[in-house]
Amino acid sequence: MAKKQTKSSTATAAPRVFTAADKETLSKLEALADRVIAAAEAGRDPFLDIPSRTLSNVRWCPRKKIIEMGRSTNRRQLFNLHQAKAFMQTLLVAKGAAELIHAGKTLSIRGLYYRLKHRIKGTSENTFETQEECDPIIEDLEVLLDSLREQLHLYADKRGDMVGNIVLVDSGDEIDCSRMGSGGYAIPSIVEPEVIQFKKCTAKFVLHVEKGTVWTRFNEDKFWQKHNCILTHGAGQPPRGVRRLLYRLHNELGLPIYCLLDNDPWGYYIYSVIKQGSINLAYESPRMAVPDAKFLGLRSCDFERCGLSDSVKIELNQVDRRRALQIAKYPWFAQKKEWQREIKQLLDNGFKLEVEALISKDISYVTEVYTPERIAKRDWLD
Amino acid sequence: MAKKQTKSSTATAAPRVFTAADKETLSKLEALADRVIAAAEAGRDPFLDIPSRTLSNVRWCPRKKIIEMGRSTNRRQLFNLHQAKAFMQTLLVAKGAAELIHAGKTLSIRGLYYRLKHRIKGTSENTFETQEECDPIIEDLEVLLDSLREQLHLYADKRGDMVGNIVLVDSGDEIDCSRMGSGGYAIPSIVEPEVIQFKKCTAKFVLHVEKGTVWTRFNEDKFWQKHNCILTHGAGQPPRGVRRLLYRLHNELGLPIYCLLDNDPWGYYIYSVIKQGSINLAYESPRMAVPDAKFLGLRSCDFERCGLSDSVKIELNQVDRRRALQIAKYPWFAQKKEWQREIKQLLDNGFKLEVEALISKDISYVTEVYTPERIAKRDWLD
Repeated sequence: MAKKQTKSSTATAAPRVFTAADKETLSKLEALADRVIAAAEAGRDPFLDIPSRTLSNVRWCPRKKIIEMGRSTNRRQLFNLHQAKAFMQTLLVAKGAAELIHAGKTLSIRGLYYRLKHRIKGTSENTFETQEECDPIIEDLEVLLDSLREQLHLYADKRGDMVGNIVLVDSGDEIDCSRMGSGGYAIPSIVEPEVIQFKKCTAKFVLHVEKGTVWTRFNEDKFWQKHNCILTHGAGQPPRGVRRLLYRLHNELGLPIYCLLDNDPWGYYIYSVIKQGSINLAYESPRMAVPDAKFLGLRSCDFERCGLSDSVKIELNQVDRRRALQIAKYPWFAQKKEWQREIKQLLDNGFKLEVEALISKDISYVTEVYTPERIAKRDWLD
Repeated sequence: MAKKQTKSSTATAAPRVFTAADKETLSKLEALADRVIAAAEAGRDPFLDIPSRTLSNVRWCPRKKIIEMGRSTNRRQLFNLHQAKAFMQTLLVAKGAAELIHAGKTLSIRGLYYRLKHRIKGTSENTFETQEECDPIIEDLEVLLDSLREQLHLYADKRGDMVGNIVLVDSGDEIDCSRMGSGGYAIPSIVEPEVIQFKKCTAKFVLHVEKGTVWTRFNEDKFWQKHNCILTHGAGQPPRGVRRLLYRLHNELGLPIYCLLDNDPWGYYIYSVIKQGSINLAYESPRMAVPDAKFLGLRSCDFERCGLSDSVKIELNQVDRRRALQIAKYPWFAQKKEWQREIKQLLDNGFKLEVEALISKDISYVTEVYTPERIAKRDWLD
């Protein structure tokens, strides 16, 4: 049944003109299939050498200033009882991605899971039991092909908004982010150059804030207009779409990325992921991480520096302390005196601070005093 | 310190021209303050009669088809040891709201908490210890004044996006939702008529879906273009901004609201809140609930009707079963045979279904077959 539907959906689609990126991904997918077929026809065991995504294969590259993967791989064989299912799943995900590219459509990773899940004919086995089984296979395919999942036409949940002095084209629609009212432009999951082109940008930098509520404060005060910038948020840990967009704004338009995050281990970690990449998904760093990003604040010294009152302190708990010590040991923080001081002072303070704490000074203190001062004085952590 | 800042922020603001809505809210706030002052000057104990937000004061109105509040109130007195702090907090929140309206600014409810939190002079008491103490006071003030928190210039987190055949004006910016690319217009928290005006709308209905990932599928397939509608999502339980916007689209533009949600108690509950209002915040129903909203699906009969395969079933757990039984007893579902059948079949099925399950049929089955069929046949639950 599922198969029949697939065929009809491909058959009814108009003949597609593939973008250069789609062509490249398709040729990688076809090469993958060809290798398996060639092995089978030659009577050899088909296998895939999948770059290992374990922590031991992740390393910090001081020259590029990103987290990247090492060279170790794991062989996944069809004729190995322990690996046969994963082998099948990998080819199934590859087939699903090829189908999406051919159809000119995209799917959520949850959608792909549903699309590919079925009872294997003549058995009582499902291709996947849960999405948790499918997601790592998608990541395997990403590293195997050196293609971001967005290039495989897959997306995760979308979060995060943007306003500011930039005009972009999204799927053919021209969007002037300086005329997006109080709501803003909702950043899509897939922001690859085939979907989004930058048309005109007069902004001089990007201010990325942690939460939508803080973003709304900055937007209402027209910070981006007064300071000629772009304003983004990622609703907490920014999703891939937001990170990839920051990467493109930085690398293609040369815009500095300034991050305004909470003074707590979670804020440090958000910064770390934007700047160096994520440890779990190290393979994506070269196309996601922005090593030049700056941490504007909040800083552990801000309680004194801004003359905040005791009432805004939030006591550190055990999880915070443990996490802060972990983060201090990350190689990209371990070698930086300023970051060591920052994290030590957080622990010495014994409390954390949210960006909203600045509202206790004045509703617009954060937009009118704190942030402009940090930027004017180039007073940030690197 | 905090007080000084308040003054300066008010002093530096240009003389404001208040909107009619702001004038009305301000006069309510001033009347509240006047009553307290008058009582004090007359040597009487100041008090506030706050409509009771307990479950026992919430009732289902079959005529209006919304959940609404009864008439019982609780007296909150200044000269009562158990009530003095809450009395002070209520006036403090009222003062905060007045400050925001005077300044022409808005704040998140978390921001207001920080703004108002301080050590009370000469004591070791804080005005509020946590935001959990402040939020219910905001709700008290809303019912006391019969003003939505948006009218008090307060907002919650924003979530949810919109595209479709409507042109609106948001804070002076004209936004054509039919030219918003793959990302869409991010729905703000405050969508009151002072912020958002509908300029032109050719859409014939609103399709509201549960999640951003499903919304992306519909947007990519240009469903709103083919079926001349508006497409919204609320990232799960829709936040107030999205609900209020659906209310306005329905009541001001006469658009039917169709909901496409998961076939599980959570999906039923999202529908219930959109349609009848929330039990906890019953006082907002008259300005938020859309009693005419329709539940397009997914339905418990869809597994058979759409010929889905076993692999998409998700087994009901104990929480699901308990929640389904609770929802079946809600008065607005209890009296409807169709809903009783729907919930009974869910329990009989023993499994739930996500909207994404339809992807197993075909990538675009939900946009090309399922949803158009339901709408064409007017096949929905009311």
